[in-house]
Amino acid sequence: MIYRDKIEIMKHYMEQLKELSEKNGPLCVGLDTDPSYLPENIVGTFGACPQTVLRYNQEIISRIAADKSACCCKIQIAYYEALGVAGLKAYKETIRLVKEAGLIAIADIKRGDIADTAKAYARAHLGKNSDFEADIITVNPYMGFDTLKPFTEYGKPENGGKGMFVLLRTSNPGMVDIEQQELKSGGRVLDRTGSELARISSEFKSIYPEQACSPVGAVVGCTEESDARALRDAYPDVFFLIPGYGAQGGAARIAATLLDKAGGTVNSSRGILCAWKKDPELSGKEILSFADIADAAARAALASKQDLLAAKKELGIA
Amino acid sequence: MIYRDKIEIMKHYMEQLKELSEKNGPLCVGLDTDPSYLPENIVGTFGACPQTVLRYNQEIISRIAADKSACCCKIQIAYYEALGVAGLKAYKETIRLVKEAGLIAIADIKRGDIADTAKAYARAHLGKNSDFEADIITVNPYMGFDTLKPFTEYGKPENGGKGMFVLLRTSNPGMVDIEQQELKSGGRVLDRTGSELARISSEFKSIYPEQACSPVGAVVGCTEESDARALRDAYPDVFFLIPGYGAQGGAARIAATLLDKAGGTVNSSRGILCAWKKDPELSGKEILSFADIADAAARAALASKQDLLAAKKELGIA
Repeated sequence: MIYRDKIEIMKHYMEQLKELSEKNGPLCVGLDTDPSYLPENIVGTFGACPQTVLRYNQEIISRIAADKSACCCKIQIAYYEALGVAGLKAYKETIRLVKEAGLIAIADIKRGDIADTAKAYARAHLGKNSDFEADIITVNPYMGFDTLKPFTEYGKPENGGKGMFVLLRTSNPGMVDIEQQELKSGGRVLDRTGSELARISSEFKSIYPEQACSPVGAVVGCTEESDARALRDAYPDVFFLIPGYGAQGGAARIAATLLDKAGGTVNSSRGILCAWKKDPELSGKEILSFADIADAAARAALASKQDLLAAKKELGIA
Repeated sequence: MIYRDKIEIMKHYMEQLKELSEKNGPLCVGLDTDPSYLPENIVGTFGACPQTVLRYNQEIISRIAADKSACCCKIQIAYYEALGVAGLKAYKETIRLVKEAGLIAIADIKRGDIADTAKAYARAHLGKNSDFEADIITVNPYMGFDTLKPFTEYGKPENGGKGMFVLLRTSNPGMVDIEQQELKSGGRVLDRTGSELARISSEFKSIYPEQACSPVGAVVGCTEESDARALRDAYPDVFFLIPGYGAQGGAARIAATLLDKAGGTVNSSRGILCAWKKDPELSGKEILSFADIADAAARAALASKQDLLAAKKELGIA
């Protein structure tokens, strides 16, 4: 309530993301940049190393920022961890480049742990001036809702107004094993998580009364239409991070369903990173440059943006 | 089945851990080394930095290896991530030191993600000669059992015979939120995970028929006696990683219950790292050296080992 005394209240990062998604369109570019996603001749010349990954990221980021074809980048830390300490240096630099380009940086870390350990993870990925400071992170709620608290603390204005997407309904086949399980007390495991998200979001409403969404969003995959509609209706004020579009096989129509109400951002990773493989403008070209493949990525990002906006229009979503 | 042709079959790391826990006792020393766990005068002199953390780790590791007071160290990566890129360099060095000292290195990473991302995490933490190569890791099964596969692949002899502990029943209060939820189809969420673990373990039985446990173990906190007994009986062949002893308030008696049958290793982190705060041999001493605090940690490790062995004896567990 003390924040109400200030004339201007800071916009938390989820709100900033929501606004940018309305300006630039809903696309999130996933920088899951595995060296194997690059052409052989580039890896052969520059190596399957963090510097090569960083260079490709840099070229993509500058193009999508200039084109305004995306509102954010999601950086999947696993691919950088796989490259060791130097990989995490490239991860840090990638986050910095995304922010510098005026886009929102989502760290796809899916961390989840207890008490002091969760605090350490929160400090690592949301703490002011930490090496890996992102705007928004993804978190895993499996160990219990007490494990979310250290992350949601960073959603408060005095802690930076950071955002987090909690795993709700993921896009992999195995989501039936736990998330989708029916509980004796009614509903599924994921509905229980959803209720907790709604509760946390309503708490934030008193901190950020003028803002359209809560700093706490949800990961909802676009792999099944009926589920998408039901979840969108159940959590109208929650902003969604939507995986499963493009290379993972989800359709634009389902993604668009999830973009209704509070909205969301739709991730595409390999569909953008590996666009050079099917880009007609590069067909027949055997030696590809960084500019070639980044241009293909930029074209794929623009096409995905158009695809998503068309699907929204078709469904009559503003 | 092809491995049966070889005369000598490699012992996977979980089996090695089991054997070492029989020799050195069941203690796992948790290197959750937050700079705030060190005395002010040391942090004042050497800084709240990765080098200080690494130095303390090094002194503890050499003592517990010499004393044979523990079978393994569990390194909680969150504390190193919180120190940024340099922190992860200290993490890498800590894993190396644990292995060099002849102890088993458990990376407490609790990663869990889909398909190619899980593969990247597995490569990062179990891959041969990767910066962060550990002997055994912890994994989070929330996103579904398909997410475990890339990790269990590393349990095969040709991939290094690595081990993994899957979260089953954690030691935090919030474990009631999801793990402990009753399912409509019978049992709790954690029982469902347990059945999958039992299934994976039985698959490994044909690969390692002579070995006493499977490379896939489970994390089972020692916070409730009846639950501990029930889980121990339900999964007699699964080796347990047991948090919740010591600083977290779990009792030796419950831990000892979990050490029955296939056995397990009992983690203590702050109870060892912060032992200098209550060590009678250091009382009145204002300026503490690395040797002072590492000696206190080593004494606490020996005392914990004795405590656990006494509790086992009392329960009549071999």
